[in-house]
Amino acid sequence: MGKVAVLMGSDSDLGVMKGCIKTLKDFGIECEVRIISAHRTPYVAENFATNAKDNGFSLIIAAAGKAAHLAGVLAAFTTLPVIAVPIKSSTLDGLDSLLSMVQMPSGIPVATVAIDGAVNAALLAAQILALSDEELSEKMKEYKKKMAEDVIKKDEELSSKLDELLK
Amino acid sequence: MGKVAVLMGSDSDLGVMKGCIKTLKDFGIECEVRIISAHRTPYVAENFATNAKDNGFSLIIAAAGKAAHLAGVLAAFTTLPVIAVPIKSSTLDGLDSLLSMVQMPSGIPVATVAIDGAVNAALLAAQILALSDEELSEKMKEYKKKMAEDVIKKDEELSSKLDELLK
Amino acid sequence: MGKVAVLMGSDSDLGVMKGCIKTLKDFGIECEVRIISAHRTPYVAENFATNAKDNGFSLIIAAAGKAAHLAGVLAAFTTLPVIAVPIKSSTLDGLDSLLSMVQMPSGIPVATVAIDGAVNAALLAAQILALSDEELSEKMKEYKKKMAEDVIKKDEELSSKLDELLK
Amino acid sequence: MGKVAVLMGSDSDLGVMKGCIKTLKDFGIECEVRIISAHRTPYVAENFATNAKDNGFSLIIAAAGKAAHLAGVLAAFTTLPVIAVPIKSSTLDGLDSLLSMVQMPSGIPVATVAIDGAVNAALLAAQILALSDEELSEKMKEYKKKMAEDVIKKDEELSSKLDELLK
Amino acid sequence: MGKVAVLMGSDSDLGVMKGCIKTLKDFGIECEVRIISAHRTPYVAENFATNAKDNGFSLIIAAAGKAAHLAGVLAAFTTLPVIAVPIKSSTLDGLDSLLSMVQMPSGIPVATVAIDGAVNAALLAAQILALSDEELSEKMKEYKKKMAEDVIKKDEELSSKLDELLK
Amino acid sequence: MGKVAVLMGSDSDLGVMKGCIKTLKDFGIECEVRIISAHRTPYVAENFATNAKDNGFSLIIAAAGKAAHLAGVLAAFTTLPVIAVPIKSSTLDGLDSLLSMVQMPSGIPVATVAIDGAVNAALLAAQILALSDEELSEKMKEYKKKMAEDVIKKDEELSSKLDELLK
Amino acid sequence: MGKVAVLMGSDSDLGVMKGCIKTLKDFGIECEVRIISAHRTPYVAENFATNAKDNGFSLIIAAAGKAAHLAGVLAAFTTLPVIAVPIKSSTLDGLDSLLSMVQMPSGIPVATVAIDGAVNAALLAAQILALSDEELSEKMKEYKKKMAEDVIKKDEELSSKLDELLK
Amino acid sequence: MGKVAVLMGSDSDLGVMKGCIKTLKDFGIECEVRIISAHRTPYVAENFATNAKDNGFSLIIAAAGKAAHLAGVLAAFTTLPVIAVPIKSSTLDGLDSLLSMVQMPSGIPVATVAIDGAVNAALLAAQILALSDEELSEKMKEYKKKMAEDVIKKDEELSSKLDELLK
Repeated sequence: MGKVAVLMGSDSDLGVMKGCIKTLKDFGIECEVRIISAHRTPYVAENFATNAKDNGFSLIIAAAGKAAHLAGVLAAFTTLPVIAVPIKSSTLDGLDSLLSMVQMPSGIPVATVAIDGAVNAALLAAQILALSDEELSEKMKEYKKKMAEDVIKKDEELSSKLDELLK
Repeated sequence: MGKVAVLMGSDSDLGVMKGCIKTLKDFGIECEVRIISAHRTPYVAENFATNAKDNGFSLIIAAAGKAAHLAGVLAAFTTLPVIAVPIKSSTLDGLDSLLSMVQMPSGIPVATVAIDGAVNAALLAAQILALSDEELSEKMKEYKKKMAEDVIKKDEELSSKLDELLK
Repeated sequence: MGKVAVLMGSDSDLGVMKGCIKTLKDFGIECEVRIISAHRTPYVAENFATNAKDNGFSLIIAAAGKAAHLAGVLAAFTTLPVIAVPIKSSTLDGLDSLLSMVQMPSGIPVATVAIDGAVNAALLAAQILALSDEELSEKMKEYKKKMAEDVIKKDEELSSKLDELLK
Repeated sequence: MGKVAVLMGSDSDLGVMKGCIKTLKDFGIECEVRIISAHRTPYVAENFATNAKDNGFSLIIAAAGKAAHLAGVLAAFTTLPVIAVPIKSSTLDGLDSLLSMVQMPSGIPVATVAIDGAVNAALLAAQILALSDEELSEKMKEYKKKMAEDVIKKDEELSSKLDELLK
Repeated sequence: MGKVAVLMGSDSDLGVMKGCIKTLKDFGIECEVRIISAHRTPYVAENFATNAKDNGFSLIIAAAGKAAHLAGVLAAFTTLPVIAVPIKSSTLDGLDSLLSMVQMPSGIPVATVAIDGAVNAALLAAQILALSDEELSEKMKEYKKKMAEDVIKKDEELSSKLDELLK
Repeated sequence: MGKVAVLMGSDSDLGVMKGCIKTLKDFGIECEVRIISAHRTPYVAENFATNAKDNGFSLIIAAAGKAAHLAGVLAAFTTLPVIAVPIKSSTLDGLDSLLSMVQMPSGIPVATVAIDGAVNAALLAAQILALSDEELSEKMKEYKKKMAEDVIKKDEELSSKLDELLK
Repeated sequence: MGKVAVLMGSDSDLGVMKGCIKTLKDFGIECEVRIISAHRTPYVAENFATNAKDNGFSLIIAAAGKAAHLAGVLAAFTTLPVIAVPIKSSTLDGLDSLLSMVQMPSGIPVATVAIDGAVNAALLAAQILALSDEELSEKMKEYKKKMAEDVIKKDEELSSKLDELLK
Repeated sequence: MGKVAVLMGSDSDLGVMKGCIKTLKDFGIECEVRIISAHRTPYVAENFATNAKDNGFSLIIAAAGKAAHLAGVLAAFTTLPVIAVPIKSSTLDGLDSLLSMVQMPSGIPVATVAIDGAVNAALLAAQILALSDEELSEKMKEYKKKMAEDVIKKDEELSSKLDELLK
């Protein structure tokens, strides 16, 4: 199982992306976290993407806000799958980063998750890596099972919560 | 390398999705094409997703329009990666299907490509499968190289085209 | 008069949905409140919807945020009317859940109310049940009358409020 | 079982709404089709809504475009359930009529279906009326079963269609 | 010069609309402020609009949020000019009330100002009344002159403010 | 009764605006139609607005597309009421011109009608002028009456139309 | 005066961009037209931008659709001003390319013109080059003067056109 | 090198625009900061733009919110390049000012940067002025280099920050 790169366009994205990093760690997936800007450090971005496969990466997760070009730029330089996390910034509620990431032209795909969907980016990475890693596949199943159990538990605890709320 | 399922919510999506199917075939990726509706044939959708892995699928590509639930519903029943293609319908220019697909809640990721981004869904599938298939990885590189050459060729042919256009 | 099911995709929806539950109770409508996620507990959702009629339910109210599939998924498994409440989440101001709920494809209707329109979901349920329950129908008329009186009272009290405001 | 009123703000809505009328007829639901404008014939709208229940109506379906007030205006004058069909007009792709209908303030619910969702309005009416009409309830089940069978049939016929498309 | 009616759909609109009322008073324009809901007190709305001209009103200013029908409903019952103020509510940032007000169908105009544009509604009323009131016309000119002087004064004071800001 | 100026930013707006001009003529309102661009002929725009009152105009109707500044620019130079008609152009479906017109800052009101709402601009002008012109006021009442009768007539003719449509 | 580069992400942008090329030629500005894709030929894009200044370019005009990264990517590799032309594609009416271009993060500016605003990109280039080229500055003045004259001429010819239109 | 004018429609824009002013000063670019409203002080705006070139300005930066006409109005009166900064106001998240600025009709270009993109407006100005000022061009290169170094430094410091965050 190769490593996962978690790249952010700015260190201000770290608050959102820590959910991604934690989830990868919980699944035992090795990851390297980097701040690389498509616009401010374009050569770093190019180098990273060009050599990502040779450097042992299987997947790249790219998070950015506003005119979020990071995922698309990385995807241009590599054939590894790139997962895009649009980050909500101070204007337009994330619509700008969502469209900048998801509306990629034919030929260069990017796998976009929800605005600020950091945890889902990690889970998608886990699902992809699990295709050739049965142990990870089992963990993924466990995760889903646990998630269902959590909802069921909350459902069971609802009545007491409800009584208080409706007082 | 496992098979790829290409599921559509309606046979009216076939016009857009043929680009996906052709691209998968061009890469030599075995695929099964199905019309399964999350709303009209929910049991079929559930069964398909629940058994997809056991039936030899590695990936699911799901295309749907309007309140496009297909990808999310399938993702709920499987741990295989699900790629979502939002289809533009007669109103709202595809924004409804895009948001219905990409804004998945934490826990159930869906890898969304552009509105009507059928070819990119196939390429993303190829990139994912190529992680454990060096031959496919080489094809992917060739594809990118060819794509670049096509652009470069068009760039070279531009001047004659331009002369005519500016007449 | 059958029971009304009030289902939420997450317990974080409870703050908004308590207005729905209170209103149902005020009308003397029996309701069962549940946390059921279309994505995290899909089998529970399927079971609930499939058996809802046999279990004595007349109506289902479903509240969810983001790519809000809950109402549509339930509607796929039942012929009972499903009322959808799009919940505003941290991005896109509720537009995503509104479109994910209201833009249902032909064949599977969902009755959508306003974003965070929890009280109106209850009132719509009351109006529907009142079609075969004259007592409830009278209560509904009283409710509307009282609502009008409240506005008229506020209108009458306005001048004093206005004086203070314009000071 | 009471009658269903199908009201349109303009006769230009008839092209979309015929799907609604046909579906109601297919279910054997008596309906009265009217052109009533909330803005051009407000007294007619008021009278219709005020007396709808006494005139034997159980439900009102209201279709309108642009600043679509019809459903909300009718709902103000009756306690019958009102189903709203936002009609797409020449600008804004139906977003204006959708928001004008669905965003009703607390107290006066309107059950909104998709933009141009005429058939679903009829199906929602059928589901509501079926709550106290077991025969209609059976028809609804048959409708859903038939709809599923149609999708399954299309799914089975897909391969031949696909061969031609991919030629 | 006739009176101006300032109608609000809810007393929660008063915070925004006090700017309108103050401005009317500053211009010496008699106004009557009312809370009238198109949905909760439709008969009051109808009566008010139907008799507005006979009751000495020249103009109606109507403020409402969400599916803001108030202005359109009043305009249906009167030939007096109706000025609409879309009020921003807790979701969609005022886009819903703006579209519900401004997108009126042909035949029933409404003069819409900016979202929360309470002061401009008063100024527009003043401009309209000034067409047959030379004194008011002079006041309007003075207002514009004063407004220009205020900007010019702020422009002159800018340098000191700037020094502090850039420290 | 003063004249009404009908100004368009471009002669391409004439197709939409002829509905405005015809309606003004039908009401016997004298109007002057001009092509004046806020951006291409700014001095003409300024001169027109500055002298409009002295030149016998009571009202200005301004139509423009895209970043539609015309209404706002004219309003800056006059105290006459300015009615704005946002024109739909080849992109963004008229949303750009609507927002550019309606979102005027405090101090300079513009009375905005619907996108491409040319007829309503004329009717709004008629309503405003009717405030001091009883004859015009009567015509306006007649217009509304006729409009209602037209809808009622269409309503009456509906059944035959419907039979054909549903065949 | 340096050359202007006119770069397009795809040869399908040529239809829109010919207006830009013609305008540059009309001003006597030397330009080089290229098809360079940020995603399909990223190395070409990088090389072009990195060496643009040394190769005698003063300005870059970049046109692209969908997730239009071209302008931002070029801007990352050069300090020359980059003018961005968002191209409308088959979905979302150009909003995606507009936001992908204009919402650039702090540090890397891009000068964005209107969706499909090809002519304005050329004019903006001319205005910038005219800062150090008095002859070009004169041409720009002439262009504006001619443009005003054209509008004035159309204004003068309006009455005959109007008569025909209103027949 | 000519001066840069930094014009704001309101002194409330100063908070955002100080980033622009500081950046210009950091580059040693002389600037004049003014509050000029296209709507409240239209003659000042016209005079400023008409004489800007003669008064030694090379460039105008214009910031405004809502129906932000300032940049377009100035551009109408000058052939100098105008850079537009759309300011986010209390509604619509800046979309109104963005569209009002960027969607300029053919003939009058405006160079629009991101919503609240004050710093980028200054950088764009610097890039334009640097075309004929080699020293400024060198500073621009230094700025970009420093910006890259800052990102690289943050990237290097990430691991310690990350440890704390993930605790």
